[in-house]
Amino acid sequence: MFTTIKRFLIGRPLRSNELEGQKLTKLKALAILSSDALSSVAYGTEQILIVLATISTAAFWYSIPITVGILFLLLALILSYRQVIFSYPQGGGAYLVSKENLGLLPGLISGGSLLVDYILTVAVSVSAGTDAITSAFQTLHPYSVEIAIILVIIITILNLRGLTESASVLAYPVYLFVFSLLVMMGVGIYKIATGQVPPDLHPHLGTPVAGITLFLLLKAFSSGCSALTGVEAISNAIPNFKDPAPNNAAKTLLMMGGILAVLLSGITFLAYWFGIAPKETETVVSQIAEETFGRNILYYFVQGTTALILVLAANTGFSAFPQLAFNLARDKFLPRMFTIRGDRLGYSNGIIFLGVASILLIIAFQGNTERLIPLYAVGVFIPFTLAQTGMIVQWIRKKPHGWIVKLMTNLIGALITFGVLMILFITKFPQVWPVFIFLPIVILIFRRINCHYEAVGEQLRIEGMFKDEIRENVIIVPVAGITSVVERSINYAKSLSDNVIAVYVAFSHEEEKRMEKRWEEWGNGVRLVTLHSSYRSIIYPLSKFLEIIERKSRERNYQIMVLVPQFIPKKRWQYILHNQSALLIRMKLLWDKDVVVATLPYHFKK
Amino acid sequence: MFTTIKRFLIGRPLRSNELEGQKLTKLKALAILSSDALSSVAYGTEQILIVLATISTAAFWYSIPITVGILFLLLALILSYRQVIFSYPQGGGAYLVSKENLGLLPGLISGGSLLVDYILTVAVSVSAGTDAITSAFQTLHPYSVEIAIILVIIITILNLRGLTESASVLAYPVYLFVFSLLVMMGVGIYKIATGQVPPDLHPHLGTPVAGITLFLLLKAFSSGCSALTGVEAISNAIPNFKDPAPNNAAKTLLMMGGILAVLLSGITFLAYWFGIAPKETETVVSQIAEETFGRNILYYFVQGTTALILVLAANTGFSAFPQLAFNLARDKFLPRMFTIRGDRLGYSNGIIFLGVASILLIIAFQGNTERLIPLYAVGVFIPFTLAQTGMIVQWIRKKPHGWIVKLMTNLIGALITFGVLMILFITKFPQVWPVFIFLPIVILIFRRINCHYEAVGEQLRIEGMFKDEIRENVIIVPVAGITSVVERSINYAKSLSDNVIAVYVAFSHEEEKRMEKRWEEWGNGVRLVTLHSSYRSIIYPLSKFLEIIERKSRERNYQIMVLVPQFIPKKRWQYILHNQSALLIRMKLLWDKDVVVATLPYHFKK
Repeated sequence: MFTTIKRFLIGRPLRSNELEGQKLTKLKALAILSSDALSSVAYGTEQILIVLATISTAAFWYSIPITVGILFLLLALILSYRQVIFSYPQGGGAYLVSKENLGLLPGLISGGSLLVDYILTVAVSVSAGTDAITSAFQTLHPYSVEIAIILVIIITILNLRGLTESASVLAYPVYLFVFSLLVMMGVGIYKIATGQVPPDLHPHLGTPVAGITLFLLLKAFSSGCSALTGVEAISNAIPNFKDPAPNNAAKTLLMMGGILAVLLSGITFLAYWFGIAPKETETVVSQIAEETFGRNILYYFVQGTTALILVLAANTGFSAFPQLAFNLARDKFLPRMFTIRGDRLGYSNGIIFLGVASILLIIAFQGNTERLIPLYAVGVFIPFTLAQTGMIVQWIRKKPHGWIVKLMTNLIGALITFGVLMILFITKFPQVWPVFIFLPIVILIFRRINCHYEAVGEQLRIEGMFKDEIRENVIIVPVAGITSVVERSINYAKSLSDNVIAVYVAFSHEEEKRMEKRWEEWGNGVRLVTLHSSYRSIIYPLSKFLEIIERKSRERNYQIMVLVPQFIPKKRWQYILHNQSALLIRMKLLWDKDVVVATLPYHFKK
Repeated sequence: MFTTIKRFLIGRPLRSNELEGQKLTKLKALAILSSDALSSVAYGTEQILIVLATISTAAFWYSIPITVGILFLLLALILSYRQVIFSYPQGGGAYLVSKENLGLLPGLISGGSLLVDYILTVAVSVSAGTDAITSAFQTLHPYSVEIAIILVIIITILNLRGLTESASVLAYPVYLFVFSLLVMMGVGIYKIATGQVPPDLHPHLGTPVAGITLFLLLKAFSSGCSALTGVEAISNAIPNFKDPAPNNAAKTLLMMGGILAVLLSGITFLAYWFGIAPKETETVVSQIAEETFGRNILYYFVQGTTALILVLAANTGFSAFPQLAFNLARDKFLPRMFTIRGDRLGYSNGIIFLGVASILLIIAFQGNTERLIPLYAVGVFIPFTLAQTGMIVQWIRKKPHGWIVKLMTNLIGALITFGVLMILFITKFPQVWPVFIFLPIVILIFRRINCHYEAVGEQLRIEGMFKDEIRENVIIVPVAGITSVVERSINYAKSLSDNVIAVYVAFSHEEEKRMEKRWEEWGNGVRLVTLHSSYRSIIYPLSKFLEIIERKSRERNYQIMVLVPQFIPKKRWQYILHNQSALLIRMKLLWDKDVVVATLPYHFKK
């Protein structure tokens, strides 16, 4: 039944050689990998205006130069990451680049902060999308946590179905969003050009503003930088592209950068020209749309596609997280299970882990995840900076044709992103300090996991790990009485070895005597050892007995096997009706003792 | 670490022969088994007055005759259950009596309703006790569910520690409660006798009341009967008494009946004489205490001990439920695990089950379990009636010396309890209908479990269940490559049988060829079978392959064993780092196939 539900939700399993068919075209990749970046234009301008509003509305003109600054930053990032794509076509982005060029620790810092960041992306963007939905339908407001959780589950299932299928579903909202914003800008600019908008709504550029400080401008700038989160997603997911993957990825990156630049400048410009101030109850994009269209169908079209893309921004996390987790797991910093492709050829464990973690985050913050946004920006700019620095080191080391230009590109990128990072730390420390707690913890976990795998590998290489040739086998059969099950188990043991010992655990002396007497008549030459248990435990005396046998057998190169019969009922619920001693014995013995545990199944026919 | 915590909470394990030391003296038994019955005087009178108050305060004098009726009912129950104790000294009460004399179905009805009832007892009385606590400390009110859960956990742990220890802890509050009520009554009656209470506070007995109906009086009576719940507990728990158990149990029962009668009449009389009307915000007992003492230390003493005993009433359920579950499990109507004595010689599984079930009930009703009270009364009077009827049948069948008197006692008991049951159904149907849903479900579960155990027993008795003598063993070793682990597994298999097959699952043709080539050089004569997997699954092709081998081996009386190596890391958290294929293979093969699954452990040293 579980299988049927699974098939219905995620579709038939795919053969390994169908992997190529799961790869993304440029248009689909743009939809699937850029929703995070594009969606952030929905709040980027607003974040700048919120900071400027703390001075006065006269300061709003500063949003124009700040946005120009952000566009420069965007250009630097796009050019830098384009170089990352060609240098590291196997994907992995910041993690791989930092690790290979700067060393292990910077690599783990990049990987760890991105990993946490993708969980934040999912939680934050789904919560934001849910807010947009519940703003429209107020009656749903009490259920916003539940709605957010359901949305995460839907996105998780779509991703388990596989990349191309989710791309097909998700492409429409992304393109609709871009289309609706372009229409809005077109109409807005047409209205301005034809003089339908009063020219005195906005302060002139360069109007002097009392009380403006560099700190405040930097804070506004760093807030606006949240519009750039998600830019790195493409560089992490190159293996998902159709061949030639790096070229296609690079083109997709440029397309995304272009669209992002157009949308961001358009929205900032219209907000400035219409003299829009941020409000508690209405978003800046909503105000622009109302100013442009009035409250008609087009207004609701813009609002609707905005809500949709905010939810879908989560999907970027779902593409990038499993790939990054794969890279970390392959390098033995995460459990091996993240390297296994599921039925639909995605890394299902990574997808499921991300889904569960973000649901827990949504529950923990009861859907109010906005305060996580600054944290999330820091988590992006740390790997940005490290990746650029890594690229610089690479160019200096390899010095390929035209390396000076490439070096300069990455140098500018590194300086800018490092600057933004410092500004974030300085202007938003009260919100971003947790990064200094969780990042060391994540890296510690990476290290512990790695340590374990290394120790295991080492132990498997050591020749002397195992005893010499096994000379003889001892088979121990715990018996609970004389039944047909015991008879069969003893017979089976005898077919494997001549050295069979039946062990009976008695809870009282009468039981002990009775059993010994019956065994004499029945035992067929097999040795019976009766153990006495004062505490009603079977495992404890058995374990003590095995210790003695183990000592002897170690001297003689004997291998011990414990043969445990287990009832297998016809229906699964019936398991609970049979006491789980077989299971407990197996767990306890495997854990503590160097004995082979064999399970002999008894299948009931009804 | 788990063991350390367990030891700290429930104490060192006890030897089986320490069981006698865990048995109860009369005084301890009275404390432990009567807290349910005694605690109900805290609300019995109030329940009567609430019904009468729907007419007028003039009707309050009816509480006196109604209480007299209830006392008669109590007498009948005590005498009847005294006879149950001597006839069924092994305990089991209503379940055993009904089953042996009336047949299986009445027995299961008794057992089922008592089982559910004990869960209700715990949930209802802990919630009531919590209400008393949060009434006193209003700031705790928002946490009442959490407090109730913690209380249940504490009582569960006390019971896991064992009967005598919990009796020692619990005896004080019970006796303090009785003492405090007796003091209150003494002072109250002294005040009345010395004329300190104005005589016009109450209507005269026999004052005509307009609008009184028989239905209403019966409803008041049936409400008051909730004071009798818990009377049967002693008859279920006879094996917990010190020898001679039946005599001690019977004496304890009489003592409990006497105390209950005194407290109930005293409270009803004082409530009548002081003209007390039930209030939303204050209990009747609290009003009596205030009238008697004023708000001084004695008042708070009465309130405090009342709150305590309400919580402790839950403990009765914890003594009776595991014993009843044991009886049902021994008769194969409940899973066998309820028959196992834990470290401290209590039936721990029953105790834990009861604790968990009542916590779930408290959570489901968010602590507002009052509406469960009528349901709970019905659940008690069904087994009451069946047990008395069973006793009648027994006397008629056995006709011992003086059986006529005994028969009459139980006949009166049966008629009265049946009458009360009918009154409950008629006057409180809107609250008690769920009994017609859950009782059939519980009985259906009993039947299904019984069916399974019977079928198992039958199958184990059939001689031809197993194949003939095992002629030869085939050992299959799944290998993932050529490593020292594989080498050791193959060597071990070879020491057990000459018929060893290594199986390799390849995900691509290159892998397949490479493995076959390496095996040729290394394989040492062991046959290698390579299987191809298009879906990245190891289990599926392995399973297919086993089907073929199984068919062949069935013809030749071969037994198949699958030998699976498993890594055992040094620390438990490291388990997650090794992909769980060994576990999955074992589960899948044991479930579907008739093969022995042996696990070969590899213990890591670090």
